[in-house]
Amino acid sequence: MTPIPELIARKRDGGDLSAEEIDELILADVPDYQLAAFLMAVYFRGLSTRETFALTDAMVRSGETIDLHAALGRRVVDKHSTGGVGDKATLAVGPVVAACGVPFGKMSGRGLGHTGGTLDKLESIPGFRVELTTDEFVSQVRDIGIAVVGQTANLVPADKRLYGLRDVTATVDNVSLIAASIMSKKIASGADAIVLDVKVGDGAFMKSVADAEVLSEAMISLGRHAGRDVVCELTDMDQPLGRAVGNALEVREAVATLKGEGPDDLEALVVESCAHLLELSDLGVDLEEGRRRARAAIADGSAVEAYERWIHAQGGDPADGALPRAPFIREVFAGRDGFVHALPALPIGLAAVHLGAGRRTKDDPVDHAVGIVCRKKRGDAVEEGEVLAEIHARDEASAVEAATAVHDAYELGDDAPRAVPIVLETIGA
Amino acid sequence: MTPIPELIARKRDGGDLSAEEIDELILADVPDYQLAAFLMAVYFRGLSTRETFALTDAMVRSGETIDLHAALGRRVVDKHSTGGVGDKATLAVGPVVAACGVPFGKMSGRGLGHTGGTLDKLESIPGFRVELTTDEFVSQVRDIGIAVVGQTANLVPADKRLYGLRDVTATVDNVSLIAASIMSKKIASGADAIVLDVKVGDGAFMKSVADAEVLSEAMISLGRHAGRDVVCELTDMDQPLGRAVGNALEVREAVATLKGEGPDDLEALVVESCAHLLELSDLGVDLEEGRRRARAAIADGSAVEAYERWIHAQGGDPADGALPRAPFIREVFAGRDGFVHALPALPIGLAAVHLGAGRRTKDDPVDHAVGIVCRKKRGDAVEEGEVLAEIHARDEASAVEAATAVHDAYELGDDAPRAVPIVLETIGA
Repeated sequence: MTPIPELIARKRDGGDLSAEEIDELILADVPDYQLAAFLMAVYFRGLSTRETFALTDAMVRSGETIDLHAALGRRVVDKHSTGGVGDKATLAVGPVVAACGVPFGKMSGRGLGHTGGTLDKLESIPGFRVELTTDEFVSQVRDIGIAVVGQTANLVPADKRLYGLRDVTATVDNVSLIAASIMSKKIASGADAIVLDVKVGDGAFMKSVADAEVLSEAMISLGRHAGRDVVCELTDMDQPLGRAVGNALEVREAVATLKGEGPDDLEALVVESCAHLLELSDLGVDLEEGRRRARAAIADGSAVEAYERWIHAQGGDPADGALPRAPFIREVFAGRDGFVHALPALPIGLAAVHLGAGRRTKDDPVDHAVGIVCRKKRGDAVEEGEVLAEIHARDEASAVEAATAVHDAYELGDDAPRAVPIVLETIGA
Repeated sequence: MTPIPELIARKRDGGDLSAEEIDELILADVPDYQLAAFLMAVYFRGLSTRETFALTDAMVRSGETIDLHAALGRRVVDKHSTGGVGDKATLAVGPVVAACGVPFGKMSGRGLGHTGGTLDKLESIPGFRVELTTDEFVSQVRDIGIAVVGQTANLVPADKRLYGLRDVTATVDNVSLIAASIMSKKIASGADAIVLDVKVGDGAFMKSVADAEVLSEAMISLGRHAGRDVVCELTDMDQPLGRAVGNALEVREAVATLKGEGPDDLEALVVESCAHLLELSDLGVDLEEGRRRARAAIADGSAVEAYERWIHAQGGDPADGALPRAPFIREVFAGRDGFVHALPALPIGLAAVHLGAGRRTKDDPVDHAVGIVCRKKRGDAVEEGEVLAEIHARDEASAVEAATAVHDAYELGDDAPRAVPIVLETIGA
């Protein structure tokens, strides 16, 4: 065993570590302060492809792994988003895929900062249980065709530890560490094929398409190394996805999308993600047939039925009336005629957090009822006095504050801006 | 208060921190892992002069400070070495300066790795107490004119913490951090004027004169900022200082030097260091007069008398016969005629550690009797079969092992190498 300070010094000086040395750092009982120094050295020096493979592999081996393929005897698919504002796509993608007959098994996280978490959205459904045992998770994927649960405590514990450290030591922003964090969890939770929605824009971790491409290539390469098929969709996060931002509001919008009544961008993204998942499944269909089947599942009602089966299976009440509603709704009005030129995702996400829809720190409670509905989005024409957005708030004071922030976030101009597709680029298809 | 991760991120990105922000990092209760990440960011980005001032200042304020000037009503001098092999200069410099009538008060450290520590050398004297209270320290400097003690636990506790972290996170090697570590302790322990012996060579932390110059300028600047006079002597550590390496052996050589019977390089360094200290004192003498007085104190016996007073004052027995002696002495012989071309300090220091004279880890015990006496040094002529060195060992096996290492360390050649002075350069005089 090489002494840990020597491993840190080698990385600090731009050298490479072997797989055994990375195992030593990740799997032995190395103190936080040495890991923190190592992570900062990685921030400056990066990790080679081989080191990133070794890191991901060590992280996967740090805890329990689930072999869904063996448990179900067939290919299982998963979908993951790098996190954005108003991103409820998983809530619609899962049921559509399940309705098409492909098992969908996902372990999900909670939200922190301006991006929401799928678990928080699901918990706005009264009775819904996100904490299943691994056996319950596997059985539900087999019997119902879909399960979305919180990560079990022992799934990639090394990631929990590393991520916790990175978050407080300014070492989050490194592509190898991000890729290893995401992919170790995807690999350990057992799906054969994964569609990764890599958000790009002011409300996302990746601010540019170029950065998102680098991250995507790294994740595809890590997936391939572990024998998993990975497709990355780079999608627009320069404005919120869909119209709703806030947990129950987003569940409602996801259900509307499953009924064919969702916003265009969300519906387009859901269909595209489902098409990739179906293409990667054992159905033997191509992308175009995948799109057709996804649209058909929405049109014939089987997608919303799959949603209801899923929610029931996890103890929730899928009825719209069961979702909580905020006591105060305040509208935000346009101050002029024109077009929405921009509706940046970050201030909208922050305004939602301020209303109580998200967490500023890990232990904050979440108010599932509150949030924002963006009635106008980029490219929409507006008239002076028309409603731009609705604020759903717990009290009047916070509604007023959020209304100001949301009003300021809207950028109105004279001409229609150039249209931007929701899927900017697809890699690994 | 700025959140700590933001401060780390700013330094990581090459920005500057304010004095208040550095106070927050050093004086607030920041976890080790955040400090470790900060230190690695400093390793890559460095600290500005203002940041280094602020860091040193915060470190000084982290604990107790001693105002020797106020306690004695006159200027007090101190001397510090950055650490080398066979460096017993303090044991001779202190008594010479005291014999010249200038108060000498020094807080010293223990050895780690291949460099010895003054406290360990002093503890080879039976009965010698290195742990005085601050009051005892101050009284002894006033009454006896000299005291050398271990750092009190509460002197610059921030340095203990930072140094402990740097040691295990590969962040030792940064000039601002080194300068702040040394100078915070010198400033807190209260001397008005400090002579810093900056070792340069294979056995020293600084491998090149250029690096030592940068460190010296930084330390002089920190001293000036705190109102202290600082002179840096850059001295040769490409071979051990003097002949003796090992605690009791070094005490004996220091006493010989106080009697005018020491090795040339050690005597030259002691006289030069004392001359600078006398020049910086309140005696009002110039450097040449300082040299004259230092030589006179050695010649007239007052230096060795001051040594004996000092050792008695701290409970020790200054008689040569009181020092421990190793049971095994083995000689190392020259395999050819010629000249000693090189006698690198590092392998000699490591061989001494191996014999038990030093510590590999912080909690190792030290064997005060063992060590190495280099009878031949760089430039000396040797004949085949002549004794190069003596190994003083606890047992025969370790003597044999050390003899091989020491024999291999000697580089013999045909011609006399170019002479190198012990003091390579003086800065700040």
